[in-house]
Amino acid sequence: MITVNVNLAERSYPIHIGEGLLDDGALIQQVIPGSQVAIITNTIVGRLYLDRLIANLPARKVDVLELPDGEVFKTLDTWSGIHQFLGEKRHNRGTTIVALGGGVVGDMAGFAAATWQRGVRFVQIPTTLLAQVDSSVGGKTGVNLPVGKNLVGAFWQPAAVLADTTVLSSLPEREYRAGLAEVLKYGIIHDRAFFDWLLQHHEALLLRAPEALTNAVRVSCVTKASVVARDEREEGRRAILNYGHTFGHAIESLSGYGHWLHGEAVGLGMVMAADLAARMKMLPSADARAIRKAVAAFGLPVARPQELTAKAMKLAFGMDKKVLDGRVRFVLATRIGCVDICDDVPSSLLDETLNTDFLCEFDD
Amino acid sequence: MITVNVNLAERSYPIHIGEGLLDDGALIQQVIPGSQVAIITNTIVGRLYLDRLIANLPARKVDVLELPDGEVFKTLDTWSGIHQFLGEKRHNRGTTIVALGGGVVGDMAGFAAATWQRGVRFVQIPTTLLAQVDSSVGGKTGVNLPVGKNLVGAFWQPAAVLADTTVLSSLPEREYRAGLAEVLKYGIIHDRAFFDWLLQHHEALLLRAPEALTNAVRVSCVTKASVVARDEREEGRRAILNYGHTFGHAIESLSGYGHWLHGEAVGLGMVMAADLAARMKMLPSADARAIRKAVAAFGLPVARPQELTAKAMKLAFGMDKKVLDGRVRFVLATRIGCVDICDDVPSSLLDETLNTDFLCEFDD
Repeated sequence: MITVNVNLAERSYPIHIGEGLLDDGALIQQVIPGSQVAIITNTIVGRLYLDRLIANLPARKVDVLELPDGEVFKTLDTWSGIHQFLGEKRHNRGTTIVALGGGVVGDMAGFAAATWQRGVRFVQIPTTLLAQVDSSVGGKTGVNLPVGKNLVGAFWQPAAVLADTTVLSSLPEREYRAGLAEVLKYGIIHDRAFFDWLLQHHEALLLRAPEALTNAVRVSCVTKASVVARDEREEGRRAILNYGHTFGHAIESLSGYGHWLHGEAVGLGMVMAADLAARMKMLPSADARAIRKAVAAFGLPVARPQELTAKAMKLAFGMDKKVLDGRVRFVLATRIGCVDICDDVPSSLLDETLNTDFLCEFDD
Repeated sequence: MITVNVNLAERSYPIHIGEGLLDDGALIQQVIPGSQVAIITNTIVGRLYLDRLIANLPARKVDVLELPDGEVFKTLDTWSGIHQFLGEKRHNRGTTIVALGGGVVGDMAGFAAATWQRGVRFVQIPTTLLAQVDSSVGGKTGVNLPVGKNLVGAFWQPAAVLADTTVLSSLPEREYRAGLAEVLKYGIIHDRAFFDWLLQHHEALLLRAPEALTNAVRVSCVTKASVVARDEREEGRRAILNYGHTFGHAIESLSGYGHWLHGEAVGLGMVMAADLAARMKMLPSADARAIRKAVAAFGLPVARPQELTAKAMKLAFGMDKKVLDGRVRFVLATRIGCVDICDDVPSSLLDETLNTDFLCEFDD
């Protein structure tokens, strides 16, 4: 087991990464110490792992709520159903809320933990690659509104994260690949060597070879933890973690949440951001092409869906959380391993990116 | 103008107290610096003060949402209506949410500020005595569920509080007196001299004499600020601010929110807590009688409503936020000016308090 620490003063916490953590009773009891536990999961994940988790929680009042599976259910209604459940089961301030599932379960259980009796202990047990490398770390919680993604939420750090890499072997292929998009993101925004390593090991990663996978999760968590530690509430540099997300959120929102997986939308978003940065002459064309190639190597979509017009995309940007005083801010790469936050993107070049059928296909 | 500071490291903020602050344009513009402002108020308060506030906010996009008036509307539905409004009016992360109103407006606007895009700037302009001395200070925000009061919420400190004492002159008599209950609370929990001063000046206070009133608000805010500064998230001693509230919340909840004003319920709750403490021989009978006398002097109810049975009250305690691991915790006075937190109240004595028709009427 590897432990990565997220350093946030009195809100610091460990991310434990390794094989078989769900069967490590001592560890589970250490991170869930109280007498009340509310496990929030979904119907799919619950069937797979709930029995093992509960078996490792003796002498506790354990209540379980299974949410319906999918981003379309990441709503205020589902979240307030968690509160109703906590009220009916009489969970008090000393309870621990455990998110057992992917990003949707984690975001909603976390927001419920942030707001139940003004905040209770929260533990993340992420069961998807996306959740292990991204959403379970850093304290962002929230739900979607019809007008935009994650518009309602809170920063609420978990007390601990348990990332059991064994569970990733049962992920559906499409979901697993979507998670690799966020792994790739850490290479692009922070670490050229990791980006190269990922490309070199893309076959092992696609085959879910345990060693390659554990390394990918570890480096991703280390990168995210270091960014979050320096800017917990995203008042500045933390925004670089949104690389690919301004485009990605627009794609998700316009397609109706759930049609594109988040990681797929971010993958394409990173390609669109690379295309835009290259058009702005910020990013060498070779790097833009390498980004497109890497996204494609992980079996993720790299072509703009025809039905998403430039006009609709720009309208969708208008409600993105990253808008400050009316200007759209993009995270753009200057080279692989380094990004900047730009709020002065020329409208004509943005139009070119939003209209082209050949993203990142530049000649030198 | 007097300024009381709430010391909470990077979350510190000033409470400005004085006459005519709503007409102090420079002060208002200083605490609301951004280009977007969302004012949340209610239909009654809006009519009285909205024009003056808006006149002092030039060169800003100002949007106003008027909520229906009353505790019965302190619900998740009303709160999510604030989010819908912020979304429609396209308020971004740089916006300031201003609560112009009493405790209900402040709690809901504050919880909306805590959760809109994971937290935006929040300013409190409390227009009731209760809000000026209690709910606007300390960062508690939230809404009620059918099963209990304030069960969903967050700690979210305002950036500033403007307590204009002039506005208190237009408060309905019943609401004004209810606010005095919380003022009295600070004397009981922390400051015997203030308690005595309040009793000596109860006529001036009932007449709303400006000097007496400003002093009462100031001392209340100083006391609350010092308690909050030492225990922001109520992990320990902050619970003393709930003196009278375990009984009070049960009274409010059983009567249906809105039938009893919060301050009225707290006033009676303080008398019940005094009765219980005297029965437990923790508190001298003379002090219990003095507490009952002071609550009565401010024209507040001091008799148990017959319809609230001991059984119903105890059931209501079960869902109070102050319950930790199944035991009900009471804040009880040991003398006027000093309280303790007790979780070992003898059930038989609690029954006596809940059944007596003669609260605090002990012979020595």
